[in-house]
Amino acid sequence: MTTDPVSTNDGVLLRACRGESVPYVPVWFMRQAGRSLPEYRAIREGVAMLDACTRPELVVEITMQPVRRHGVDAAILFSDIVLPLKAVGVELDIVPGTGPVVAKPFATMSDVERLRPLAPDDMAYITDAVRGLVGELSGTPLIGFAGAPFTLASYLVEGGPSRDHAKTKALMRSEPAVWHALCERLAAISAGFLRLQVDAGASAVQLFDSWAGALSAADYGTYAQPHSARVLSAVDDVPRIHFGVGTGEILPLMGAAGADVVGVDWRVSLPAAVARLGGRLPVQGNLDPTVLLAPTEVVEAEAASVIAAGRSAPGHVFNLGHGVLPSTDPDALTRLVDFVHTQPVESGA
Amino acid sequence: MTTDPVSTNDGVLLRACRGESVPYVPVWFMRQAGRSLPEYRAIREGVAMLDACTRPELVVEITMQPVRRHGVDAAILFSDIVLPLKAVGVELDIVPGTGPVVAKPFATMSDVERLRPLAPDDMAYITDAVRGLVGELSGTPLIGFAGAPFTLASYLVEGGPSRDHAKTKALMRSEPAVWHALCERLAAISAGFLRLQVDAGASAVQLFDSWAGALSAADYGTYAQPHSARVLSAVDDVPRIHFGVGTGEILPLMGAAGADVVGVDWRVSLPAAVARLGGRLPVQGNLDPTVLLAPTEVVEAEAASVIAAGRSAPGHVFNLGHGVLPSTDPDALTRLVDFVHTQPVESGA
Repeated sequence: MTTDPVSTNDGVLLRACRGESVPYVPVWFMRQAGRSLPEYRAIREGVAMLDACTRPELVVEITMQPVRRHGVDAAILFSDIVLPLKAVGVELDIVPGTGPVVAKPFATMSDVERLRPLAPDDMAYITDAVRGLVGELSGTPLIGFAGAPFTLASYLVEGGPSRDHAKTKALMRSEPAVWHALCERLAAISAGFLRLQVDAGASAVQLFDSWAGALSAADYGTYAQPHSARVLSAVDDVPRIHFGVGTGEILPLMGAAGADVVGVDWRVSLPAAVARLGGRLPVQGNLDPTVLLAPTEVVEAEAASVIAAGRSAPGHVFNLGHGVLPSTDPDALTRLVDFVHTQPVESGA
Repeated sequence: MTTDPVSTNDGVLLRACRGESVPYVPVWFMRQAGRSLPEYRAIREGVAMLDACTRPELVVEITMQPVRRHGVDAAILFSDIVLPLKAVGVELDIVPGTGPVVAKPFATMSDVERLRPLAPDDMAYITDAVRGLVGELSGTPLIGFAGAPFTLASYLVEGGPSRDHAKTKALMRSEPAVWHALCERLAAISAGFLRLQVDAGASAVQLFDSWAGALSAADYGTYAQPHSARVLSAVDDVPRIHFGVGTGEILPLMGAAGADVVGVDWRVSLPAAVARLGGRLPVQGNLDPTVLLAPTEVVEAEAASVIAAGRSAPGHVFNLGHGVLPSTDPDALTRLVDFVHTQPVESGA
């Protein structure tokens, strides 16, 4: 059997996500569209985050910026995981330096009942943005994204970012019926958000469970995984990447939730991640984002070791182990893309 | 051979730390002396944290409060890991709601050179406090404590608490000579801080590496472990507990640094921790602190499962997987101590 040719419409990234052979290791960066880029800071000047996310021309431009600058193998829709919550009427805002802040935190079943389903025309701006992007990207895949129910629920219950998720975990253990009802509604909303991105042309998705690493495996399995699985099952026609930080203990469960690719943070070596995933799934990651603050030779040595480690996987998408830090020199990111693209895919090749 | 009787001078906690047989699972709580207790909030009123730590009568009273109230099996010296840095002249303060804030963050070798060694009379108030405590505790062991070099270095380099430790990691990778010189001095200071606690009568120590879980195993092994090992080797005449959060990937290296007991956060199941430690070391932990916000029956079910899991270890000290949350009901802690003390040590016993 001959190796399939790589067409511009079916990029290297999608092949790696499916565990197919690739001519080089594909690379993109979480938060590649963001504050590390001067052109991003310029275009965001005076525009609030959630406003920017609802203006298709801005979403297209910001999403394209890192693709043009770095030559990454995928675009990721510029958006925010709480955007669909705002779209269904939750009063919230993203406060610079803090994160999402919810006006009336959720605590009871009647709070849950104010979370209505996503309606087809709630996020027409997303459909417009995705269609615009697919046109501009000329073959580079667009990754859609959404937040997982546990992480979204934590924002709603805590009223904002939280270090220990104390109220969230208290609710899930004390009022499991309220907890599961909340997560079921959130799963439907996130599934709808992903579905509309895929229907408009996104060719892969990433489900972010930013805070899932705060749970033990037992708690993750009981309170989070079933709801994430429901979200992922809604978009099983495209490769589904599933990512969180500090997830070393729950990687097998994140894979089993229905992921096609599991994103790994920098704490877990890729061979360890592959083993925990039963050798079955491609992985994404996992250079420590702070490595990019070191000299080029350090960056390249560390990146080479991530690529070498990735050869143990049935597929590897190079990425950082978390988002690009705002203080990152964008030229260091461009050099890293070039470096990854020139590394051999097979050891000794 | 008969089982040794448990005397009041050689408590159950120390026996568990040495892997000896115990009549019940000993229990104490990280941050047991703290804001969860109304008597603590009352005594701290109007007294700054670092001032409180330098007044022996306050240190004794605050350290004793949870011992009297909960009947825990150990006291832990009320202090702060940055106290010895202040004692050697680093300008810093603990800002309520923020944490330690350093006036002039460290970045260069000349910064490192302003970190002088701990002199014998720099912390006479600690010696006084420990002696006072040993008198009052009548046999209940006192655990001394200090911060590990990586965590202390992070405070000095970042100038305060940090989510991503970006400057710290940039320094360690870009200027390894400066990094190691800094950590060597910090190791000597922490070793001195522990040594004076043990010399004054502390019968065990806990080395806190609060932020070590931010490092991959490779980076921990290169940049942190050797310095922690130097601290631990200075107090090898008492049981040494070594703890950090998010440390699943580095547990074997934390054990190998010279720990007698490894503290485990709630993310890693105790049998998994025991396996990663080669079945060789007793463990401490690991109830998720947020469990205490749930109803008593949930607390007891979760605690029972921690105790059952701990039976796989060559010794188990019950604790939370991180510090007591300030919002914890102190009565829930007292009930938990009673519950732990009545559970069988052996399965089926």
